[in-house]
Amino acid sequence: MRATTIHGLKDIRFTEVADPVITKPTDAIVKVIASCICGSDLWSYRGDNGAIEEPRTIGHECLGVVAEVGSEVTAFKPGDHVIVPFDHCDNTCPACRAGYQSACVNRGMTVSGQAEYARVNFADGSLVRLDDAPPAEVLPDLLALTDVMATGWHAAKMSGVGTSGKGGTAVVVGDGAVGLCGVLAAATLGAERVVAMSRHESRQELARKFGATDVVATRGAEGEAAIAELTGGVGADYVLECVGTDQAMRTAIAVARAGATVGFVGVPHGVEVPIRALFDTNVGLKGGMAPVRGYLPELLALVQDGAINPGLVFDKSLPVEQVAEGYRAMDERTAIKVQLTY
Amino acid sequence: MRATTIHGLKDIRFTEVADPVITKPTDAIVKVIASCICGSDLWSYRGDNGAIEEPRTIGHECLGVVAEVGSEVTAFKPGDHVIVPFDHCDNTCPACRAGYQSACVNRGMTVSGQAEYARVNFADGSLVRLDDAPPAEVLPDLLALTDVMATGWHAAKMSGVGTSGKGGTAVVVGDGAVGLCGVLAAATLGAERVVAMSRHESRQELARKFGATDVVATRGAEGEAAIAELTGGVGADYVLECVGTDQAMRTAIAVARAGATVGFVGVPHGVEVPIRALFDTNVGLKGGMAPVRGYLPELLALVQDGAINPGLVFDKSLPVEQVAEGYRAMDERTAIKVQLTY
Repeated sequence: MRATTIHGLKDIRFTEVADPVITKPTDAIVKVIASCICGSDLWSYRGDNGAIEEPRTIGHECLGVVAEVGSEVTAFKPGDHVIVPFDHCDNTCPACRAGYQSACVNRGMTVSGQAEYARVNFADGSLVRLDDAPPAEVLPDLLALTDVMATGWHAAKMSGVGTSGKGGTAVVVGDGAVGLCGVLAAATLGAERVVAMSRHESRQELARKFGATDVVATRGAEGEAAIAELTGGVGADYVLECVGTDQAMRTAIAVARAGATVGFVGVPHGVEVPIRALFDTNVGLKGGMAPVRGYLPELLALVQDGAINPGLVFDKSLPVEQVAEGYRAMDERTAIKVQLTY
Repeated sequence: MRATTIHGLKDIRFTEVADPVITKPTDAIVKVIASCICGSDLWSYRGDNGAIEEPRTIGHECLGVVAEVGSEVTAFKPGDHVIVPFDHCDNTCPACRAGYQSACVNRGMTVSGQAEYARVNFADGSLVRLDDAPPAEVLPDLLALTDVMATGWHAAKMSGVGTSGKGGTAVVVGDGAVGLCGVLAAATLGAERVVAMSRHESRQELARKFGATDVVATRGAEGEAAIAELTGGVGADYVLECVGTDQAMRTAIAVARAGATVGFVGVPHGVEVPIRALFDTNVGLKGGMAPVRGYLPELLALVQDGAINPGLVFDKSLPVEQVAEGYRAMDERTAIKVQLTY
C-alpha cells in the first residue's frame, strides 16, 4: 500500500510499504477513507522524540471501512464504516472499566493512519460503528473525534469542568487543535467563562467560535498576570494544559486557583513538576493520554446532534499524496490542522 | 513565657522567651493547655530544612483557652476553650470559600505551639470553640484534630475516597501519625479495603484498630509487588502519600490503578515527579497542606460522637518541660507521637 513515512528530521514522504496484515485473531484491517495530521506528529517531525533510526509509517488519526477481520472479531465485519480511536483497547480490562481505556492492559496504537490501510488491535473493543458511509461534510467532525476532540474533552474532564454544579472559569493553555477542542469541551461541559490563551488571530477567532469568552494573547509572567486580573486575583477553577512543554505546565499551575486541578493532555517534553508549589496551593495535576474509546459514544452523539463542530479545527485539506506539505504547514503554523483526502 | 525552642541539629530546649503579643487587631493569644510534637517538626530537628541560623520557637499543634483578643475579634473572648488549627485563615477569602483554607490569602501558622502561649492570626476565621473545658481523656483526640487527623483526612479526601459511590481499595503509604490517621480517614470515608504499608508491629496494630484490612510490611519494588498481588494486578483506587520523600511518592504512584489519584500530604522533600509515568497511566496527584479549619466541624462531630478516636496515635506523654525527650523518642521511632502535658 501507499503510506506516509518519516525518514528523518522534517523528512516526510508518501511511499510504498508492505500492507498491514492480521497478526492476532482480535485484529482488524481498516481501509482508510479520511485521515489527518496531529500536532503530536510534529514532535517526531522536529526531532523532539529522538533521531529517526529507520523509515517508519506515521499517523494515528483516521477512519474508514473494515476490510478484513481476525477470527475472534465478532462485532465488526468487512464493509462496516468505523471510527478508529488512535489508542486501541480491549474495553473490558479493569482500566477500561474504570474509564481509562488509554491505560488498557492491551493498549495498541494506530501506526499507519495517514495511509491506505491501518491495523486496529482489539477491534471489538476499539472500533465504533457508523450507521452509514459518512457524507464528506461530516468527515472533519468525525476525524476530530479520533484524537484531538477526545483529547481536549479529556483535559476538561480531568480538570473537573462540570463536576461542581457551578459554571466556574476555565483557562486553556495552548491554541493548537487540542487546545481549541479544549475550549469547545470546557464550554460544552458547562464552564461559565472560558479563557483561551492564544497569540494568533485566526486561532483566537476559532476559540471564540468554540465558546471562549475571553482571550489572553500574552505568555509567561505577563499571561499569568492577565489571568490573575481576569479572575480578581483568585485564579481559574479549571485549567487545561494542552501543550506539553515545561513553560506551558508552569503557566497552567500558576493560573490555577487554590485547590483547582490542571487537566494535562500535552505529551510531557522536558516538564519538571514544581511539586512544592502544588503542595503550597493544593493545585492538583491529572491527565494523560485520552481514553478516546470511552468518550466516543457521547462525542459522536454531540456531533450527530449538531451540538459541537470540532471539524472546524481543520483549516487546510490536501490529497494524502501531498502529506509532506501538510506537515510543513503545521510546523510553520500556517495551518492549525490538516485533513488528508483520499 | 516558657517555650520549646530549637537551637541546632537535634538541639531542642524548653527555655524562657518573650510572650507572644497581639500584633494585629485580628489576632488572639491562646493559653496552651495541651500540645504535641509533629512528625514534620522532625524535618527541622534532623536538619532537613536547612541549618538553624538562630534559636526560635517550634511546635504548631495545640489547644487551649483564649487569653487575649485583638480589637477586631468578635467571635471569641478570653476564657473560651478553643482548638487551634495549625494553619490559620480568615475563612472568608476565595481560597477559604473553595474549601482550601490552607491556601488562604491571610494564611498564618502556629509558631509556639509547644509553649505556654501561642498567637493565632485571624482568630475569628481560624479558631473553633469547644463548649466546655475538655476532660483530660478527650484531649488526645482533640489535639490530633489540630493537624495529623485533619491531614490524614485531607489525603483521603484528595485521593477521592468516598466519591465514587463504591468502596474501593485505598493504600496508605507511611505509618507515621499522619499515615495512621489516613487509614482511619479512608476507613471512615468508606473505602472497603484499606491497606497500610508499615514495617513496625505496634504501628501495624494501630493501623488495624483504625480500620486497615491489610498490612504490607515490605517497601520499594517488593512492597509494590505486594499491592499488585492484593489488587489482582489492577492497583489501588485511592492512594494516600503521607511521608514526603521521593521513594514514598514513587511507591504511591506505582501502586495506583490507571486513573486513580494520589492524595499527597507529606511535605515534599526531594520529590521528583515522574510526569511521564503519570501521563501514561492517568494517575493524578492532588494534595498539600490540609485545610484544617475547613474539616474541623465535621471531625469534631465525629470525635464527639465517638465515631473516631484519632488520639490513639499518642503512645507517649511527657510534661512539656521534657519536650526534648519527646523529640528524641519520635526521631528514634520509639514513639509514634508524643503528647505534652501542662
